[in-house]
Amino acid sequence: MIVANTYHLYLRPGIDVIEKMGGLHRFMAWDRTILTDSGGYQIFSLAHLRKLSDEGVVFRSHIDGSQHLITPELAIQFQESLGADIIMVLDECPPYTENFEEIKQAMERTHKWAERCQRSQTRNDQALFAIVQGGISPELRRKSASFLTSLGFAGYAIGGLSLGEPKALTQAMVEETVTLLPEDKPRYLMGVGSPEDIVKGVDRGVDIFDSAFPTQIARKGAILTWRGRFNIRNSTYSQVGDPIDPDCDCYTCRNFSVAYLHHLFRCEELLAYRLTTLHSLSFMNNLMNKIRGAIINGTFNSFRDSFLANYRSSDEKLRLTQR
Amino acid sequence: MIVANTYHLYLRPGIDVIEKMGGLHRFMAWDRTILTDSGGYQIFSLAHLRKLSDEGVVFRSHIDGSQHLITPELAIQFQESLGADIIMVLDECPPYTENFEEIKQAMERTHKWAERCQRSQTRNDQALFAIVQGGISPELRRKSASFLTSLGFAGYAIGGLSLGEPKALTQAMVEETVTLLPEDKPRYLMGVGSPEDIVKGVDRGVDIFDSAFPTQIARKGAILTWRGRFNIRNSTYSQVGDPIDPDCDCYTCRNFSVAYLHHLFRCEELLAYRLTTLHSLSFMNNLMNKIRGAIINGTFNSFRDSFLANYRSSDEKLRLTQR
Repeated sequence: MIVANTYHLYLRPGIDVIEKMGGLHRFMAWDRTILTDSGGYQIFSLAHLRKLSDEGVVFRSHIDGSQHLITPELAIQFQESLGADIIMVLDECPPYTENFEEIKQAMERTHKWAERCQRSQTRNDQALFAIVQGGISPELRRKSASFLTSLGFAGYAIGGLSLGEPKALTQAMVEETVTLLPEDKPRYLMGVGSPEDIVKGVDRGVDIFDSAFPTQIARKGAILTWRGRFNIRNSTYSQVGDPIDPDCDCYTCRNFSVAYLHHLFRCEELLAYRLTTLHSLSFMNNLMNKIRGAIINGTFNSFRDSFLANYRSSDEKLRLTQR
Repeated sequence: MIVANTYHLYLRPGIDVIEKMGGLHRFMAWDRTILTDSGGYQIFSLAHLRKLSDEGVVFRSHIDGSQHLITPELAIQFQESLGADIIMVLDECPPYTENFEEIKQAMERTHKWAERCQRSQTRNDQALFAIVQGGISPELRRKSASFLTSLGFAGYAIGGLSLGEPKALTQAMVEETVTLLPEDKPRYLMGVGSPEDIVKGVDRGVDIFDSAFPTQIARKGAILTWRGRFNIRNSTYSQVGDPIDPDCDCYTCRNFSVAYLHHLFRCEELLAYRLTTLHSLSFMNNLMNKIRGAIINGTFNSFRDSFLANYRSSDEKLRLTQR
């Protein structure tokens, strides 16, 4: 599944261009599943000079400062034009705060917008997912999950996390929320993430994750292995003749040594970013396959324990510098 | 065939590293033909503070200013360690000048170095090519070709051109030189180039060309077609649903529209550079296949005329800005 973003595509190349080109699947020549996010998160994190009302958000483009309006109805209309398989409601994503009143207001607006998104949907071949908000308040998380569930969506996402709150709090909120979402509908944790966070998320009952993490860190030379993450630009690796992982069957590991990748990074060859990204995406696919296999075989708990025992998590400093 | 460069590889990652990694073929996982240039051209165009003597060149790295020595013997030793299939003599490449005496001195040094390169070769599984110098002097070109031919090399390159002289002069010099080189040995025009220059070069009897041209211009959005070159970043192309060339069988043309490539360039996605490079290299391969086919069928002259009539050459200004 590829995740595309309505905010970015709306600004460049424009929703109308993609519609004219036959929709998003055809535009990027991807005939498998596509999910489009509504752009709510980007409007609140990237765009400038937001003016928020119950009607919608007026914002300025982070590219050229031009002014635009998005409403729940427009978010659905745009996503229907793009034609993804899974589409998302427009939600309000306030920055991390401990202020209960602020969190509550954002949640209530998100609920109203979710209803309007649902009502404005005209296509019946796209799965519309709701997004649970409620910040770091267990009470509001419960309220949000229960309200959105009562409306009946095709799937449910957990939003408004990983915004700077302590990691333990993120995990507590995920746990709080997941248990309130219907077991027979996909549960989607937005913006996660790293191998260890995915394994922990699955453990709590999450089905879908999305993140630029593997490609983002690969382009900075960070490589994922079953023993943890390492950075191939480090001079230690300049003469390592083995592939990243001799057991990995990706194109990169089948053909190239660590020393070659190290050299490409040092010379800033574009091939460096491509080869490491190929490995990292392949690693994530293998991880997800192993997780699925373990769930089917009823051995997930032992898989989780053995994975987490071998995988050295990155400390917070590394996380931030390699983003 | 891939052309690699001894100067660049000597500085990064180092000849010893590639030797330890099993040679250049294995290092970059390319089991077909590789040619290494001796680095002469780069020492004279990229390196700093050159000190030239009959012995060799002392130069400073363009990367970190460190000082290095290269001699004809070292150029061969390095290329034997790299292990390419075709290797080149070290030559002196002075900048473009009309001063006969300067051209003559550089040519004479190139001749002495060619002899030393030949004598110092220890492997018998690499084809050593000489490089004809002589600048824009027909007299010196003839002298150089005749002297080097008398030494007996596996192939002959034409160097010291495309250094800023008028294009008509380049072509006159190529014509002058090619006819003096043995018909039964490969004749290699270094640093050329564009589709039209290659067709004209073949017409004059050249067998081998090398150039970063197709990849270099592709990374700036310039696309090669049978009708000439166009730049996909131009806003005219934002809504063109067709591929670059509907008859082209490259991965890019089989999957993506001009509008999609235009969008990738506008967003500076790395995929933009990759997809356009794939098309441009595929175009060059198709061009060479057509040339070979036409020669075999005895129809090269009509192929040349029809190609040059359809292919709109770029003007000088475009050439320079898209380099």
